[in-house]
Amino acid sequence: MRKIVTFGEIMMRLAVPGHARFVQAEQLEVTYGGGEANVSVAAAQLGLAAEHVTCFPDNDLGKAARGFYQKYGVGFENTPLRGERLGLYFLEVGAGMRPSRIVYDRFDSAFANLEPAWFDWKKIFQGAHWFHWTGITPAISANAASACQEAIVTAKEMGLRVSADVNYRRNLWRYGNTAQEVMPALVELCDTLVCTQGDAEDIFGIKSSSFEDMAQQMLERFSMLNTILATRRDTLSANHNRLTGLAYTHEGLLETPTYEINPIVDRIGGGDAFIGAYVFGLHHFDENQAQALHFATVASALKHLVPGDFFLGNVAEVEAVMAGETSGRLLR
Amino acid sequence: MRKIVTFGEIMMRLAVPGHARFVQAEQLEVTYGGGEANVSVAAAQLGLAAEHVTCFPDNDLGKAARGFYQKYGVGFENTPLRGERLGLYFLEVGAGMRPSRIVYDRFDSAFANLEPAWFDWKKIFQGAHWFHWTGITPAISANAASACQEAIVTAKEMGLRVSADVNYRRNLWRYGNTAQEVMPALVELCDTLVCTQGDAEDIFGIKSSSFEDMAQQMLERFSMLNTILATRRDTLSANHNRLTGLAYTHEGLLETPTYEINPIVDRIGGGDAFIGAYVFGLHHFDENQAQALHFATVASALKHLVPGDFFLGNVAEVEAVMAGETSGRLLR
Amino acid sequence: MRKIVTFGEIMMRLAVPGHARFVQAEQLEVTYGGGEANVSVAAAQLGLAAEHVTCFPDNDLGKAARGFYQKYGVGFENTPLRGERLGLYFLEVGAGMRPSRIVYDRFDSAFANLEPAWFDWKKIFQGAHWFHWTGITPAISANAASACQEAIVTAKEMGLRVSADVNYRRNLWRYGNTAQEVMPALVELCDTLVCTQGDAEDIFGIKSSSFEDMAQQMLERFSMLNTILATRRDTLSANHNRLTGLAYTHEGLLETPTYEINPIVDRIGGGDAFIGAYVFGLHHFDENQAQALHFATVASALKHLVPGDFFLGNVAEVEAVMAGETSGRLLR
Amino acid sequence: MRKIVTFGEIMMRLAVPGHARFVQAEQLEVTYGGGEANVSVAAAQLGLAAEHVTCFPDNDLGKAARGFYQKYGVGFENTPLRGERLGLYFLEVGAGMRPSRIVYDRFDSAFANLEPAWFDWKKIFQGAHWFHWTGITPAISANAASACQEAIVTAKEMGLRVSADVNYRRNLWRYGNTAQEVMPALVELCDTLVCTQGDAEDIFGIKSSSFEDMAQQMLERFSMLNTILATRRDTLSANHNRLTGLAYTHEGLLETPTYEINPIVDRIGGGDAFIGAYVFGLHHFDENQAQALHFATVASALKHLVPGDFFLGNVAEVEAVMAGETSGRLLR
Amino acid sequence: MRKIVTFGEIMMRLAVPGHARFVQAEQLEVTYGGGEANVSVAAAQLGLAAEHVTCFPDNDLGKAARGFYQKYGVGFENTPLRGERLGLYFLEVGAGMRPSRIVYDRFDSAFANLEPAWFDWKKIFQGAHWFHWTGITPAISANAASACQEAIVTAKEMGLRVSADVNYRRNLWRYGNTAQEVMPALVELCDTLVCTQGDAEDIFGIKSSSFEDMAQQMLERFSMLNTILATRRDTLSANHNRLTGLAYTHEGLLETPTYEINPIVDRIGGGDAFIGAYVFGLHHFDENQAQALHFATVASALKHLVPGDFFLGNVAEVEAVMAGETSGRLLR
Amino acid sequence: MRKIVTFGEIMMRLAVPGHARFVQAEQLEVTYGGGEANVSVAAAQLGLAAEHVTCFPDNDLGKAARGFYQKYGVGFENTPLRGERLGLYFLEVGAGMRPSRIVYDRFDSAFANLEPAWFDWKKIFQGAHWFHWTGITPAISANAASACQEAIVTAKEMGLRVSADVNYRRNLWRYGNTAQEVMPALVELCDTLVCTQGDAEDIFGIKSSSFEDMAQQMLERFSMLNTILATRRDTLSANHNRLTGLAYTHEGLLETPTYEINPIVDRIGGGDAFIGAYVFGLHHFDENQAQALHFATVASALKHLVPGDFFLGNVAEVEAVMAGETSGRLLR
Repeated sequence: MRKIVTFGEIMMRLAVPGHARFVQAEQLEVTYGGGEANVSVAAAQLGLAAEHVTCFPDNDLGKAARGFYQKYGVGFENTPLRGERLGLYFLEVGAGMRPSRIVYDRFDSAFANLEPAWFDWKKIFQGAHWFHWTGITPAISANAASACQEAIVTAKEMGLRVSADVNYRRNLWRYGNTAQEVMPALVELCDTLVCTQGDAEDIFGIKSSSFEDMAQQMLERFSMLNTILATRRDTLSANHNRLTGLAYTHEGLLETPTYEINPIVDRIGGGDAFIGAYVFGLHHFDENQAQALHFATVASALKHLVPGDFFLGNVAEVEAVMAGETSGRLLR
Repeated sequence: MRKIVTFGEIMMRLAVPGHARFVQAEQLEVTYGGGEANVSVAAAQLGLAAEHVTCFPDNDLGKAARGFYQKYGVGFENTPLRGERLGLYFLEVGAGMRPSRIVYDRFDSAFANLEPAWFDWKKIFQGAHWFHWTGITPAISANAASACQEAIVTAKEMGLRVSADVNYRRNLWRYGNTAQEVMPALVELCDTLVCTQGDAEDIFGIKSSSFEDMAQQMLERFSMLNTILATRRDTLSANHNRLTGLAYTHEGLLETPTYEINPIVDRIGGGDAFIGAYVFGLHHFDENQAQALHFATVASALKHLVPGDFFLGNVAEVEAVMAGETSGRLLR
Repeated sequence: MRKIVTFGEIMMRLAVPGHARFVQAEQLEVTYGGGEANVSVAAAQLGLAAEHVTCFPDNDLGKAARGFYQKYGVGFENTPLRGERLGLYFLEVGAGMRPSRIVYDRFDSAFANLEPAWFDWKKIFQGAHWFHWTGITPAISANAASACQEAIVTAKEMGLRVSADVNYRRNLWRYGNTAQEVMPALVELCDTLVCTQGDAEDIFGIKSSSFEDMAQQMLERFSMLNTILATRRDTLSANHNRLTGLAYTHEGLLETPTYEINPIVDRIGGGDAFIGAYVFGLHHFDENQAQALHFATVASALKHLVPGDFFLGNVAEVEAVMAGETSGRLLR
Repeated sequence: MRKIVTFGEIMMRLAVPGHARFVQAEQLEVTYGGGEANVSVAAAQLGLAAEHVTCFPDNDLGKAARGFYQKYGVGFENTPLRGERLGLYFLEVGAGMRPSRIVYDRFDSAFANLEPAWFDWKKIFQGAHWFHWTGITPAISANAASACQEAIVTAKEMGLRVSADVNYRRNLWRYGNTAQEVMPALVELCDTLVCTQGDAEDIFGIKSSSFEDMAQQMLERFSMLNTILATRRDTLSANHNRLTGLAYTHEGLLETPTYEINPIVDRIGGGDAFIGAYVFGLHHFDENQAQALHFATVASALKHLVPGDFFLGNVAEVEAVMAGETSGRLLR
Repeated sequence: MRKIVTFGEIMMRLAVPGHARFVQAEQLEVTYGGGEANVSVAAAQLGLAAEHVTCFPDNDLGKAARGFYQKYGVGFENTPLRGERLGLYFLEVGAGMRPSRIVYDRFDSAFANLEPAWFDWKKIFQGAHWFHWTGITPAISANAASACQEAIVTAKEMGLRVSADVNYRRNLWRYGNTAQEVMPALVELCDTLVCTQGDAEDIFGIKSSSFEDMAQQMLERFSMLNTILATRRDTLSANHNRLTGLAYTHEGLLETPTYEINPIVDRIGGGDAFIGAYVFGLHHFDENQAQALHFATVASALKHLVPGDFFLGNVAEVEAVMAGETSGRLLR
Repeated sequence: MRKIVTFGEIMMRLAVPGHARFVQAEQLEVTYGGGEANVSVAAAQLGLAAEHVTCFPDNDLGKAARGFYQKYGVGFENTPLRGERLGLYFLEVGAGMRPSRIVYDRFDSAFANLEPAWFDWKKIFQGAHWFHWTGITPAISANAASACQEAIVTAKEMGLRVSADVNYRRNLWRYGNTAQEVMPALVELCDTLVCTQGDAEDIFGIKSSSFEDMAQQMLERFSMLNTILATRRDTLSANHNRLTGLAYTHEGLLETPTYEINPIVDRIGGGDAFIGAYVFGLHHFDENQAQALHFATVASALKHLVPGDFFLGNVAEVEAVMAGETSGRLLR
């Protein structure tokens, strides 16, 4: 069985039930999430082996976060329990033209204070075929950035495929270095990148007229890159989106059918499901890009229809939608 | 007051709250349901006397199921508490293009193990004017099929009107006989049948080009039959359906306006509400088929807008919609 | 900081969770609401000082109602705790073409039995710039009508602006006098009125061909009136409405863009949010009627997207929608 | 099967969950209860036929109350749906030395406004062997008192046994007459009375040194009376009570063992369970007073260990405790 | 009306429902609490005017915390909304011999980063008669300690009475200074102190053989001090405590009866209720120390029987227990 | 790290919330449990590696059960997903003298229909040091008994220590063979046995005057046995038990202090925690029987204070109680 390894922070997510506002909340729903770890969940649900590497605080909340992911099949054999606090964020769920809102409380977390020496990447990557990281990790702290770099270099040396989700969040970069300084060297070693036109311009200074144009420039700029992925999301309202998958390789542009997502059950983690399903899809469809992209797009759309950050489902469910079964008819 | 009698199994329904998946469920919502008993609830809510006949296991779960129906006005004067287990099923509620799913766990139930001798149909039918059964009952066990046949024959002898919902579920027929062997003799004695083109072909070998064509052939084949009923459902998504009522009698085809059901609150029991409301409607509208059909279709549509298996409402509510009040404006 | 004063009854609202019917309810969600007090909440949320005047029963439920409003910034410095019962109403939430329904249980409340002498309006209005009342208050009892009249007269004498929401509910007027007898003298002293064509005809005998026509006649009839406000609501279903704001002044008719409200989270209090936000908007936009009306309409629409009777939000959120951000995109 | 008939008001009970105070409640738990109807539930659970007679308001809340009792086997064949409001009360649950508290809101209910002519007691009592009422009913209104008197007289004429729970609540008697004026004539016709020393003194002017003394005087005063019942409750805390059953007949005093109730799950309805189980017990134990009293006391104690107003259990459970099984050991 | 002012941090409290462990929690119950602010709630519930001074972060969580306290009658006229995060803590509720556990996450909060200049104590204390602070505040940051000192000095100058709860938490003092360095100068100006023998030794180096001995030494050491308060808690289990009030003044030692607290509903805030009720009690009983102490002790015991951090109740409830009504008998 | 392997069925547990009865349940709390698997959870929580071997049905419920255990650190590397149904049971929680009750619905489960050939015990036991089974497994079906026997024989051959919990449930043995026929051969190969006097007499015909007497006879009868374990439970009520640990080896009898369990949060799984903690304890205390027994008894007592079937806690928590900290004092 092929194995993916992911690296990044996991936070506690505290969501107001229903559509109430923060000030009304008497209870908060607890789940845990992290963009990279969510990729591992999707891959594990679909049938890959998956290990996530992170740093949990050495308290009951860290253990709770770990157990939450173990339930869905993700391993943590190389994750230390060290440090004081688990980053967290508060989520309020919008409706119609009222947006959902997030209040972050993630600074000074155990992950931000990790030491690169705690991670033996040679050991971690044994038996793995894919490594995935995101632009969130090098934004958190200098140490997190170093550990991420070591991981990428080691993965590449050991022959793993390396993917990243650029995911630029300006207000996270607080420790001194900027994304513009740090990211290019990290992206340099990747094969596969999820990137928007906006991120390409903000971080790499690449101005573009279209996804295709941007992707082409990126492939030229970063020689090891061979695939740029993205989803196009039409946000009709907080409850109704449309999703289309896009990929650009040296073979040119691929685009999937557009899927209606209505009503959205949970928006968070849609992009992570896309990547996890893409990694599985390449394997499942013998490296057929078009099928993998289609599979990933449908898995991402289905993720929006389940509460929590995770894609929870199986291959047959995704393939049924790919085959056109989008009516949601009751299955007895 | 006119009285309907129904016969069939009642199961515990364990539904995952909201749109969570089975693997996420920490709580399950308990209701009870059975296609035939649901017909009695609709009839009782609208104003008919209603008794359901079944077999409950002799334990607290059987009594809980009975109480659940008594609350809504259905009597159980002739139902034994005998046997070991209550059949049950698990329900996961979909959204958008993600279907709802049912996991059945109903074999070897108290109902499946009933003895025909436990039911004194002569006594049961005293004072009743209508008997309703479905194709689920003879599928469950040879004994259930026998009891059902005795009930139909006795009902007919005593002058009751007899209706059935064909409702073919191939994977239920496990005890040796097939629907093709058993059903024709049972349908032979019915006046009114709910039947789809697919069921007519699968069970009775009747190929047809339209509902009307099928219904015409059915009336020719089964001489006592005088009405074939159906609803046409357009499944736009798990949350959005459209419903139209259809009836075919010796007078020809009747078709109701089409009703939007959006958002669906609970899909289960929509067909049962249709039948219970039709039986009431015939009485209420002095046997006017068109009005009864319209009434039944609206009641079925309204059922989808209430949680649980049951039609819960009154005549005025149904008639308001029939009169065109479909805007859902707040009633103070 | 400008200050609004409102006067009227506050009731306990007991709502069935989800879309269940009354007969299914095992729990009821408790909030408190009153059309006039809800106006104070909206004004307080947006930044005005706000005091509500009412009469609570002298028991734990009265104190609970008071605390519920204090949480959202409304003061009750001049509200007695006297009398026996808190009026209440039961709410069942519809879906699609099934309407929401209210069962009132509000007679003989502490508010209905208030004594006008308990309220020292001179003291109450000190420091206030606006007084708002509705046609519900004079309907409740002769004493409530007297107190309301004293308040209006005093407010006018002290130079406050006075607004009213006509809000005619025929079945509330039980104590002997009719709306037709009582209301004209009260409206006589108002500057600003929320009024529909139907209410204008029923209470003031003004027949009209359009909102504009009605408003023009009202301004002619009541010499102090300078503004007639309304919202036009298209009720597509219990879940989907469209809302447009309307105002008529001596300058002529103003009309806002139309806003989609889909899915409606909570319909109650939409009109109250409109008024509270309008009062704030006049202040915020330096008496610009068009901007105040636009602001009020958006605030009202946003209110429908939050559970409970109250507008809960801030100025920036309303202005973002006014600026065209209606896609409900996640805010991190 | 023997049949008991009971007569009295049923109210909605709105209880704060857990041990929260009214001011904290965001949800209220809805059940329905009435002292007389609760007696019918206990009798029906244990195996008697049971019908309750009351007047429900003609709205969804009245129907919900009726369904709530039907679920547990109580019939309402002779109960009209007429009038406007359902009486209700709010319950806050104490702990330790903090008492539970009730806020009543029951005046002007549909039951208070009933017409005696709505009840055909000759028809109602057909097939019944026992009639039970309480001192609450004649306190509610002159009409309720009249209907109660007619019921008692008719029951006596038709040979039913008649029991009453004196249950004196001074602040309920608001309509003009007093308990001292009304009750003696009603008690005159009873066989069996639940009465405390305090009630005997307050209503009948009987001063006594002990339960036995009071009961002896009562039997002398009211010639048809043959049994005085009571439970002695030691209130150690809101969570811990001790209960002993007492009966006095012409044979003398009977007293049961004392039962520990710790922790109390729900205190309301304990006395009603005692009476319902006593009526069943007399039948079950062939009129053996000591056994019936013991059975009734255990049933009452067990009622405290179940949420809601009702005794929910069966004969075997009560008899197991009577036989000494008080350890609460898990039953697999 | 007399007015108390309190100063200190307010945190979000996230409690696991029931007795589940952190790792099991799918939901957390949200309340807000702070030792000083809880004192204001108790005082406000009992009838004093109360204002709390703190610093909330300028986000929805800060506003939610503020609203939570406003509901119970505490004012925040002088509290800025500045800074980034609200401190928080997680609570797991024990049972029997299993202790409750708290995981703190409170560093770097908005309160820790406050500027002393944001608080105009002269204005704040106008109209107030009492100021209360605790040893938590000077532990949080140098700035918090400075602001606290300014408040104490100003209060003293303006003639307010000043009380403090020593409440030594070694692991909070992280910013450089120690409690031993900071606290003596602050306590110097207080009249009334809550202090345990352990705290007296740890902070002031006062070794003692008994509460009385310690208190005597404290009064000698700090010349303005005139009252030392404490509660003696016997912890029999997580569910069962016993509580006794102690006070030492120049008149000597006072000790209240001992109160059983069983079962404990919520342990947090018991000490805060004691102080708030003591301040009210002095006023209510015309400075009678024995009565104020008794009142405070009962209020503290009753606080344990209500969920959340707050004393919620009224004077009559406390006085009923003082008068011996400890049986928890239902109040209708 | 040492590793324990356990083998047995896992069922879905559906528990009525609070103390409600089955007939009242609108929701059921879902957890999963199995006596043998619960032993693995306790061992994994305390720090051993743990794998459970079972057979789950190949549906979403089987996967949900697996995820539920994975969360707490138990592996399922050698467990097939085959068959149709997951056994389940319904639990109603008693109070005081009212017992908790279980309704089983476990026949014909996927586990009952397992094939012994699906389990490669040589592979399974690699790296393990302990194997644990119970008398439930050979009771379920002939195939389960065969698989269990193969496991025991293989474990013994490979040098693992083997323990069993006799746990005789007469009504489970339905497939033809009896416990008396099957169990002796299986117990023959065990080192360690949990056994009561009743079970020893019922299954092995050993009559005894005390635990010590029984244990001595057992050691004589089964030559490989070296330890008999038991807990003595005093059942004071459904909420209050006392627990004492007992062990008998060739060195004689060991007995621990008695621990109060009050209030019981969840009774199920107490014995499983005892065994899992004993296996860990032997390792942790270098085979010191007295310390291991003490540790196991405290862990079992603590298990009763947490909801669900599992011991959830750590070594420090158990050792704190062993050291005398039984007051349940709040840990900040």
